[in-house]
Amino acid sequence: MADDALLQHLDAHYQAMPPVASMRLSIAGYDGVRLRLHAPLSVHVNDKGCAFGGSLVSLMTLAGWGLVSLRLQAAGLDADVFVADSQVRYLAPLFADLDAEAGFAPDSDPAAFLDAVRTRGRGRIELQATVPLPDGGVATTMQARYVAIARR
Amino acid sequence: MADDALLQHLDAHYQAMPPVASMRLSIAGYDGVRLRLHAPLSVHVNDKGCAFGGSLVSLMTLAGWGLVSLRLQAAGLDADVFVADSQVRYLAPLFADLDAEAGFAPDSDPAAFLDAVRTRGRGRIELQATVPLPDGGVATTMQARYVAIARR
Repeated sequence: MADDALLQHLDAHYQAMPPVASMRLSIAGYDGVRLRLHAPLSVHVNDKGCAFGGSLVSLMTLAGWGLVSLRLQAAGLDADVFVADSQVRYLAPLFADLDAEAGFAPDSDPAAFLDAVRTRGRGRIELQATVPLPDGGVATTMQARYVAIARR
Repeated sequence: MADDALLQHLDAHYQAMPPVASMRLSIAGYDGVRLRLHAPLSVHVNDKGCAFGGSLVSLMTLAGWGLVSLRLQAAGLDADVFVADSQVRYLAPLFADLDAEAGFAPDSDPAAFLDAVRTRGRGRIELQATVPLPDGGVATTMQARYVAIARR
């Protein structure tokens, strides 16, 4: 599939999950190594008028999940993707729409990950995600590991 | 306030946040040191028929946030509560309704935390939360630090 078809497929996958559909997210950008998701603050606002922490984690987790899924599909691999663990730091409140951007961790090797899924039926890879602030700072950061298990 | 009034107040607080209201959560138990929240799987199901990772983190984060808020209010303290950081491990998929239980970490000192908020205007405390499996195992665990800042 070309990138456009992959992104349409990913969006349909997101919207088919009830808790994700309620987040009103949209795919805001993809260049093969980074995936960016967007969601309106109005749907994710907490008691202090800023973005709810659970929404920030969810959006970052979904961005990472989407990036891994896109790379697997682009490689012609059919696999379930699970998040295995995550570390999140909440650095500053976000009083604007949410944008989460996920990429591979510096020491991650996407080619080796895809090869492991292809040859051994499962692979593991570490990702990083951030939610930027409008002024150029950072609201939250996440490091997370994802596992892919080939469907037989 | 008595515990019943505190729990009603907390539930109203939860339901006033749009992303939390959409989770359909309810307060399932509170004994002064542990708070348990419940949410139906149907609202939180992912593409694999089990609970969505973002929902699990959100529910654990809200359970911790609620426990800290309850203890502050019971002590007569008016403070904003923020989650500062969290570590989550996804151990097993959950194919049942979600229950998240939060308590204080073993080396946390709730009395010292409340005293810090009272005397210095802010305090920090570490919590643990889990989502159990129906068979007695554990679906996810979280360690998180929360910060409370007194409202002037």
